[in-house]
Amino acid sequence: MTNPRFDVVGIGNAIVDVLTQTDDAFLDREGLAKGAMTLVDEAQAAAIYDKAGPAMECSGGSAANTIAVMAGLGAKCAFAGKVRNDAFGRIFTHDIRSLGVHFDTAPAEDGPATANCLVLVTPDAQRTMLTYLGASIHLKPADVDLDVIKDAKVTYLEGYLWDPEDAKQAFRAAAQAARAAGREVALSLSDPFCVDRHRADFLDLIEGHVDILFANEAEIKALYQVDDFDAALDKVKGHCKVAALTRSEKGSVVVSGGETVAVTAAPVSQVIDTTGAGDAYAAGFLYGYTRDGGLATCARMGGIAAAEVIAQIGARPETDLKAAMALKLRTWDAAD
Amino acid sequence: MTNPRFDVVGIGNAIVDVLTQTDDAFLDREGLAKGAMTLVDEAQAAAIYDKAGPAMECSGGSAANTIAVMAGLGAKCAFAGKVRNDAFGRIFTHDIRSLGVHFDTAPAEDGPATANCLVLVTPDAQRTMLTYLGASIHLKPADVDLDVIKDAKVTYLEGYLWDPEDAKQAFRAAAQAARAAGREVALSLSDPFCVDRHRADFLDLIEGHVDILFANEAEIKALYQVDDFDAALDKVKGHCKVAALTRSEKGSVVVSGGETVAVTAAPVSQVIDTTGAGDAYAAGFLYGYTRDGGLATCARMGGIAAAEVIAQIGARPETDLKAAMALKLRTWDAAD
Repeated sequence: MTNPRFDVVGIGNAIVDVLTQTDDAFLDREGLAKGAMTLVDEAQAAAIYDKAGPAMECSGGSAANTIAVMAGLGAKCAFAGKVRNDAFGRIFTHDIRSLGVHFDTAPAEDGPATANCLVLVTPDAQRTMLTYLGASIHLKPADVDLDVIKDAKVTYLEGYLWDPEDAKQAFRAAAQAARAAGREVALSLSDPFCVDRHRADFLDLIEGHVDILFANEAEIKALYQVDDFDAALDKVKGHCKVAALTRSEKGSVVVSGGETVAVTAAPVSQVIDTTGAGDAYAAGFLYGYTRDGGLATCARMGGIAAAEVIAQIGARPETDLKAAMALKLRTWDAAD
Repeated sequence: MTNPRFDVVGIGNAIVDVLTQTDDAFLDREGLAKGAMTLVDEAQAAAIYDKAGPAMECSGGSAANTIAVMAGLGAKCAFAGKVRNDAFGRIFTHDIRSLGVHFDTAPAEDGPATANCLVLVTPDAQRTMLTYLGASIHLKPADVDLDVIKDAKVTYLEGYLWDPEDAKQAFRAAAQAARAAGREVALSLSDPFCVDRHRADFLDLIEGHVDILFANEAEIKALYQVDDFDAALDKVKGHCKVAALTRSEKGSVVVSGGETVAVTAAPVSQVIDTTGAGDAYAAGFLYGYTRDGGLATCARMGGIAAAEVIAQIGARPETDLKAAMALKLRTWDAAD
């Protein structure tokens, strides 16, 4: 097999985040489920936005964030996702391309606006998200270039893609093409509510179509409908090649075959905004993984990337992540 | 005279900032004048944006930033400026209204897009700005509600307003109405290049139409075409009621009648991005001024607001400025 052109190709909803700081009282008043991602229509999104404080806008989307962070680390990446040819679509396209990511999904010429996600950040650094999927629901199988899929070591899929019907088909086609080409498929479970919506499908995917699974504690417990992390850990064993399970300040646990590796969390001076923590973990992990790193190294790289992202507002690092990664990996080794 | 409804009404270009981190090599390659604000057309703006790195978008505009910072401090404010009814126009409108600012300039239904400013931030925290004025050039005298002007203690005008022809007329009409109502008029010189473009007009304004002048060292030297700050200081004396001149890390000097007050700069842990430093200074100063603060207090409040804004990315504080102001004013008093 020739050396693939890409380390990872991501497929996900192409979203611009609208980030605003708020407080618990606002969430209570609006009846919003704190920490969750809720799908909303355009009118609902506008109604909450009108009541929210000043915001800043930046590119988001779960898989897109992962790809952006990986590109920042120096990986060769591609992305597929649907925007409209509007202002937010141009922002999304600019931001991901400016990182050197191959992104050529044709924008929709009409129909719903580019997706946006109102991210309400509370003082405890938790984020509550309201997503208007807009144009991203029109990602069709034909939008995913299977030549790119075949030419990437890993095809990375976000669980949120399971929400729009067309995207689900694109998701399946991509996973099939990747596997047929001898490549690997990674899946992030995205959100416990997303798991609730699509549990049977996700269990089926993990059984035979996914090599690398990313989930946080709440998501993996939701998947297996158990209350205990260790019980969930037992359940996932043997169901995919690698499962990387994140546990916030408790670090992460990676299961692969008979092996289980637990890694502590990377230190963070101050947690400002947890938006994108899981996305960044997957990025660091896959960066190590596509360079044949051992499981512990992959998990540490994931933890370091996540630590950088939660120490700032927004899901993509403003800092030089490559330098931070090198420095923190060295410190970690020295501490062992 | 009844108690006015507003402390300050600002009139300025209504702009959304597109902030990106870059380096000196990029500025050199593109032939951009570091630290300056350059007016560009839509195509020029797009050409540089395409080559720039990932960005974040947030509301900007010089006078609008001043008003936003004042509102954050708890002042009663209004703003007039022209957007289009497009995505950036909605962002601008949302952000300023969400701070409790009275903003009801009707958006343009057609014509150029809402103004944007590509802000290129270099590692030395300097910002180089490329402004596409777009819809903001269509601010007409009729867009400024003179009842609001008459009902504000101070009408604050940015020098940049002198660039679009229509806005200049709006500017003059507002200043006249304010003075006729016994209110005061404040002017920020905005930028040394802006001063070069409109020197004769600005000198005339300062002579008889402006009560409070804001300028930084480069601007006041450009206005009087002198190389020395003290020479500029001598020239400005007696030409308006108050001149507040900022000198970056050297603090600020306020001249009023026979009085000259110099105040040191507020401490900053790390300067990240100087975008909006002058705007924030004017906000802090006017907050004190409209509460009958002494000149030294006004200057300190200006310095504290500026210090908060340069310690972060973007021109409007992400932190609770009201709390920071109270704390730092106390510390300052204790140090005297």
